[in-house]
Amino acid sequence: MPTPSAAFSLRIRAKIPNQPGEFASLATAIGAVGGSLVGIDIVGSGGPTVTRDLVVFCDSVEHASQVEAAARALEGIEVMEVEDRTFAAHVGGKLSIDAKTALRDRDALAMTYTPGVARVCTAISEHPELVHRYTMKSNTVAVVTDGTAVLGLGDIGPRAALPVMEGKAVLFKTLAGIDAVPVCLDVSSPDEIVETVRRLEPMFGGVNLEDIAAPHCFEVERRLTETLSIPVFHDDQHGTAVVVLAALKNACRVVGKDLADLRIVLSGAGAAGMAITKFLLSAGVSDIVAVDRMGAIHRGMEGLNPSMAWLADHSNPSGRSGSLREVLVGSDVFIGVSGPRLLDRGDLKTMASDSIVFALANPVPEVLPEDAEGVVGVMATGRSDYPNQINNVLCFPGIFRGALDCGATAITEGMKLAAAEAIAAAVAADVLGPQEIVPSVFSPGVAQRVAEAVADAARKEGITRWS
Amino acid sequence: MPTPSAAFSLRIRAKIPNQPGEFASLATAIGAVGGSLVGIDIVGSGGPTVTRDLVVFCDSVEHASQVEAAARALEGIEVMEVEDRTFAAHVGGKLSIDAKTALRDRDALAMTYTPGVARVCTAISEHPELVHRYTMKSNTVAVVTDGTAVLGLGDIGPRAALPVMEGKAVLFKTLAGIDAVPVCLDVSSPDEIVETVRRLEPMFGGVNLEDIAAPHCFEVERRLTETLSIPVFHDDQHGTAVVVLAALKNACRVVGKDLADLRIVLSGAGAAGMAITKFLLSAGVSDIVAVDRMGAIHRGMEGLNPSMAWLADHSNPSGRSGSLREVLVGSDVFIGVSGPRLLDRGDLKTMASDSIVFALANPVPEVLPEDAEGVVGVMATGRSDYPNQINNVLCFPGIFRGALDCGATAITEGMKLAAAEAIAAAVAADVLGPQEIVPSVFSPGVAQRVAEAVADAARKEGITRWS
Repeated sequence: MPTPSAAFSLRIRAKIPNQPGEFASLATAIGAVGGSLVGIDIVGSGGPTVTRDLVVFCDSVEHASQVEAAARALEGIEVMEVEDRTFAAHVGGKLSIDAKTALRDRDALAMTYTPGVARVCTAISEHPELVHRYTMKSNTVAVVTDGTAVLGLGDIGPRAALPVMEGKAVLFKTLAGIDAVPVCLDVSSPDEIVETVRRLEPMFGGVNLEDIAAPHCFEVERRLTETLSIPVFHDDQHGTAVVVLAALKNACRVVGKDLADLRIVLSGAGAAGMAITKFLLSAGVSDIVAVDRMGAIHRGMEGLNPSMAWLADHSNPSGRSGSLREVLVGSDVFIGVSGPRLLDRGDLKTMASDSIVFALANPVPEVLPEDAEGVVGVMATGRSDYPNQINNVLCFPGIFRGALDCGATAITEGMKLAAAEAIAAAVAADVLGPQEIVPSVFSPGVAQRVAEAVADAARKEGITRWS
Repeated sequence: MPTPSAAFSLRIRAKIPNQPGEFASLATAIGAVGGSLVGIDIVGSGGPTVTRDLVVFCDSVEHASQVEAAARALEGIEVMEVEDRTFAAHVGGKLSIDAKTALRDRDALAMTYTPGVARVCTAISEHPELVHRYTMKSNTVAVVTDGTAVLGLGDIGPRAALPVMEGKAVLFKTLAGIDAVPVCLDVSSPDEIVETVRRLEPMFGGVNLEDIAAPHCFEVERRLTETLSIPVFHDDQHGTAVVVLAALKNACRVVGKDLADLRIVLSGAGAAGMAITKFLLSAGVSDIVAVDRMGAIHRGMEGLNPSMAWLADHSNPSGRSGSLREVLVGSDVFIGVSGPRLLDRGDLKTMASDSIVFALANPVPEVLPEDAEGVVGVMATGRSDYPNQINNVLCFPGIFRGALDCGATAITEGMKLAAAEAIAAAVAADVLGPQEIVPSVFSPGVAQRVAEAVADAARKEGITRWS
């Protein structure tokens, strides 16, 4: 049952008779169809009417239509304008590119542009590393996509993907002070993505790959990491893996289990599932079984693609086979990065006691928190309307902040582990509990903690451009 | 003789004894070596000293060293820090990419990012033209270079070119409210530039080509114009041509000559020279002779590259040949986009009376205004320290503003002619004169006038996406 939210909100401008009860009748009509009235402004008054803007949260597009219809049906109230607030927030795009210092006069022009700029150009030409100091490269990350796996929408192409990349850039700036540029590529192969990003490398200090479908995303990431001397990070894979590890560390503290002893079942062998498996193994997990539509992936299976073959070789040490339900029996942890409603309460009951369930499919998780209540030790989802939201936003701003701050030439396993530890440590001991294993997306200071831990790790590994 | 300027300015932090005459001795020492003291701030005081920041304009790097040495030589004054203000203004780059609307809470996140953004993506996926309304594409221009012909510096590569492109982006925003993204490409052929810009087209509403060497720039522009349905404009060519035409129209008004009757000699058959020639011909000029190192380009000449062959076929109707000095005799107009000090006062005397001289080579023009005084009717240069600065900044912000505002699919000859007319018209009749044929770079409203004229022209030609 969806909750009314800002995502489906309307601004309704209505001319309402200036008499007792008239506004109340409108508010009542909106409430009667389930609209949540969250804001009211007077935008004009005079004579026998008052003009008001009402902000109403709805739970879907259809619901918003019902709310609008209910408002329009009222006698005596004139609905002048109905605006979809989400679309209104996108008009003209969400980003602004500004001069850091205002260009007010010829003196500023002479330093920012010709003739002064020529000296800076010459310095970079003579000492190429200075591009990291005197240009946008020092603080700019490319948010690169080909639009083939956007949110839950699939292959909608680079143009339709642009609002998501702009949103990501907004998060980079808001949470970590990073200038991020959407790079939506009209391309048709991993080759073309790799080649284009290489050509664009001069102005970027880092590359965040985003919403590129598997298996292309693996190849693109591998080849770019090999070629470029700036950090490359596929957020859908590694951001998710980092936050899952952070959450799992804290969940272990809550239920009193040890990471190395966990029996983990992971549902979904896509890009995120692969990355989570690899990362948990490198963090010390020993027993993880990945389950796909074909069942538990194990050594000796036929018809596996290269990723699955890797899983068959490196996970599932006891060679379990069978369906998700079958291998779940007795396990300590379920991690879902697959699809909606794969498990029910009965399934969760077959798990070990004090089980940990991360049902991360969006918007509908593999199992609903309601069904897990009283059965599991810790429950988390990817959603903001339940406790324990496992969200990449906890990772990518800080990890790039740290990498840029120290001039890291890559993002290593050690830096990701440091990020996970920092995210976990951002939950204070006195609030850590079944309902709070990760910090809130908006809790202040998380990105900075992550950045410091990541930069420290990079310095220890000796992969920084300066110390 | 260069003038001290902000481009070569220092900030000198000095601890100065708090006694009469001490500060004066420092100011005197700086003045004695020609430094221009333009600002003094107290940054700390207490006890027997005052700490001050002095801003000193110098005329070159060597001069700045002399100024520093003079300050350091003084007994009793401690120079604590000397900063090159131009380099300081470049630390961290000159651009900031920000969210237009602050992301303060979950409601904003739900509209800007998931889940709300998915509806905007879906809308664009179903109606691709909506990308021009709901994304950064509506107001964003790519400033594209390969770094092969940067300022007067030549082929310094895409990294060293970045400060110039950032400066250009600053001008786009300051003068026309346009979000511009530097796109510095590490490429080695026109093919690669064309291909890369095509792949990047999803997020840009226009492409400004910049500092790409001839002849590649011609091919890149032609092929991109053919392929893309967004405006493509090579500023070094067409921006210059537009401002030259604007200046020439006003110069004609000043000296009482008619554009169609002018005998014009143009020095420099590079990208700018080609574009100026073509554009003046399309504006109604009939007699223009282009002169290169080989002399006046005329029909029947041997060993011409394709651009020069075009000039031989389309300009110089009377087939004049000979050196620059020779063909200059009796002409009404000299336009130089070539190199320093090609002409002297004697040469200018051979021109027709009330001659018009645009000596645009930078930083040293083809002939100095001092040498033209009393000999010519109107004199202009590309420099900011003489009257009549012919600067592309008068054109490109307005031309792109106009194109974006009306959703133009290209920048046509008609739009460029409208831009030139609007720039010329921005000089009010009562100030128009030999010392003022073009508006100042910072005169308010020029970009807006140009934008309106350009959008009108585009609408008349029926090449706008909306009306």
